[in-house]
Order: sequence, then structure tokens, then C-alpha cells
Amino acid sequence: MERLRKHIEQISPLSNEEFDNIKILFTKKRVLKNQYLLHEGDDAKYEFFVLSGLYKVFFIDENGKEFILQFAKENWWMSDYQAFFKEKKATVFIECIEAGEVLVSTLETREKLSAELHKMEYFYRIKLTNGYVALQQRIKQLLSSTPQERYEAFVKLYPDLLHRLPKKLIAEYLGLSRETLSRMYSK
Amino acid sequence: MERLRKHIEQISPLSNEEFDNIKILFTKKRVLKNQYLLHEGDDAKYEFFVLSGLYKVFFIDENGKEFILQFAKENWWMSDYQAFFKEKKATVFIECIEAGEVLVSTLETREKLSAELHKMEYFYRIKLTNGYVALQQRIKQLLSSTPQERYEAFVKLYPDLLHRLPKKLIAEYLGLSRETLSRMYSK
Repeated sequence: MERLRKHIEQISPLSNEEFDNIKILFTKKRVLKNQYLLHEGDDAKYEFFVLSGLYKVFFIDENGKEFILQFAKENWWMSDYQAFFKEKKATVFIECIEAGEVLVSTLETREKLSAELHKMEYFYRIKLTNGYVALQQRIKQLLSSTPQERYEAFVKLYPDLLHRLPKKLIAEYLGLSRETLSRMYSK
Repeated sequence: MERLRKHIEQISPLSNEEFDNIKILFTKKRVLKNQYLLHEGDDAKYEFFVLSGLYKVFFIDENGKEFILQFAKENWWMSDYQAFFKEKKATVFIECIEAGEVLVSTLETREKLSAELHKMEYFYRIKLTNGYVALQQRIKQLLSSTPQERYEAFVKLYPDLLHRLPKKLIAEYLGLSRETLSRMYSK
């Protein structure tokens, strides 16, 4: 739980008592490689804070083609946020790529902590602000950039993931063919 | 200012006194057709709440090609949020398509209101949550959907904008050629 505390305290410092009240609302879960934390069609009741391991959030179109929305590593949050916030059925999958541990929490917890502790509302607002900016950046990239630019932006943003992820998955995330990606690796 | 109050109160009801303290932090501004509210390279110091009129947030790539990130109509917020939140230079333009009025505010105002009034922090968090979900939806669409699906989603989401916007701009927003879009109109 110390990882969660440090993570929150980068934005909102907490007293011991405050953190004691927060941590009882999170449950630790071990996740095995290839295990699914969320499946299309499930109620998207949970969000996950990554303690260790590596995960992918993806969806599959009508033709069976897979698209990766997000990777998640240590200190990242993940869910089908569209479904989670609107309390609907999931339209994405979350699968474990590297075994690890996550903390599991609910929308009720997010709302309760935000309502009871102004500094937790601040924490969630700042995290959402950062997330919003990152998604807007991704949209700009999807609209306009070349494969080479997308690859370079990925390498710059996530140098560590380059070595932890199979090339196939990086290609799917960037919306490139494996051949195009291999050409970039060799440069 | 009544429009702003109603807008906030859809999420956080306010006392008269609270709203009096909020409204003095917003300045009303008249905007003419084709006027720029933000130009690439400017300090992105302001965010805008639309009282009336229609606006586009766009960027231009190295080859001079234009891409539309967002339209904004009544009750919508707009800025170069990446630059606004990080206090950097704008990488997008905001141009007025239909003359109208906006309320102008700053990051300092957003932070001050959030810090002083827990219910304003709640308001901004909920708005960001909705914005985050909308951007994620757009990413899914950009990654996987066909031109026909993109067009249909736009019509469903913004039936009124279909008639207020020139076809050229809708095509730019959807990342389609004008010819492809014209074929869809005729269906």
C-alpha cells in the first residue's frame, strides 16, 4: 500500500489517519500472465491501480481486429473508463502481459473519497487533467502524424516499455503494420 | 452570466453569494466571425466558456494541412488544454465560425475556485471526467471506424451542428475527404 500512498502524496499529502481511511477501500489482487481483469460485456465496476506487472487495455472490432487503447505499468490507473463512470457494460478488455499485483477499487470509493476529503477530490481532478491532456495528445497524433513520428513519440514517452513489450503489441498500439515497425527498429 | 450559473448548477448547486464570488472572475467578450481567440505560439493563458456562437479548435501540420480537434458551441469549454494546464505555448488555433460571446477565465481562477470551494472542485472534476470519456471515445473511433461509421456517430452526437457547419469543416473533423462526405450526405 506504500506505493499507493506515495502516488497520492505526489499530489496531495496525507496524514496517517487519512491514509488509513483510504487504504481500507482498496483490495490487493495478484494477476497472472494472460489473465483478464475485464472482459467486453462485463459490468465495468472496478478500476485498477497497478502495483507491478504490465497490462493492455484493448478492443476488438467487428472483423476481429484488435486495437490497443492503453498500456498500463507501475503507478498507472486503468479501467474501461467510459463504462466505469457511466456504470455501463465494458466495451474493452484488460489483459495482463507481465504478471503482477493491482489494487482494486470502485466508483463508489472514488466518489466517497472525493466527497469526504477535499484533497482527494483535488488528487482525482489533477489525475484527470493529466489524463485529458495525454488523450488529446494522442488524438493529435492519430490525426496527423506519420508512422515514423508516432514511433519516435512512443520511444520518447515510454523508453522502458520498448523493451518490455512484444513488437506486435507496439505495432497495434501505434496502428502500424509489424513490417513498418520492424523497419523503424532497424533504423 | 445566468448561462454560466445554470451550467455549473447542473453539477453543483450554488448560493447567490457563492455565485457572486465566482462570476467576478469571468470576463465577457464579444467575438466576431473569423476572429481568432488563440493563435499557435501564443501563451495559452485563457480558457473560454461559450455563451453563444460557434468555434473551432484546430492545428496545422508541417505541410499546411488543417486538422480539427474540437468544435465548441453554447455551454462548451475550450482552450489549448495541453498548453493551458502546463502553462506552455499554444500549438493550436481557436477561430470563430459564427459570431457570439464567450466568458474568459484563467488557470489561476480554476485553481482558486477549486481550492476555496469544494463544490467547484467537484464541478471541474466531473467536467473533466466527461471530457476524458469523450476523448477516449474519439480515439476508439479514429483507430477503428469506417468513414460511414464516423459520419453516423457525428450526426447522432451533434445533429444541430450538421446544419450549422460548412461541409468542409465536418470533413476535416472526421478526417474524410469532401468527396467522401458528399457521398454520405446524399445517402
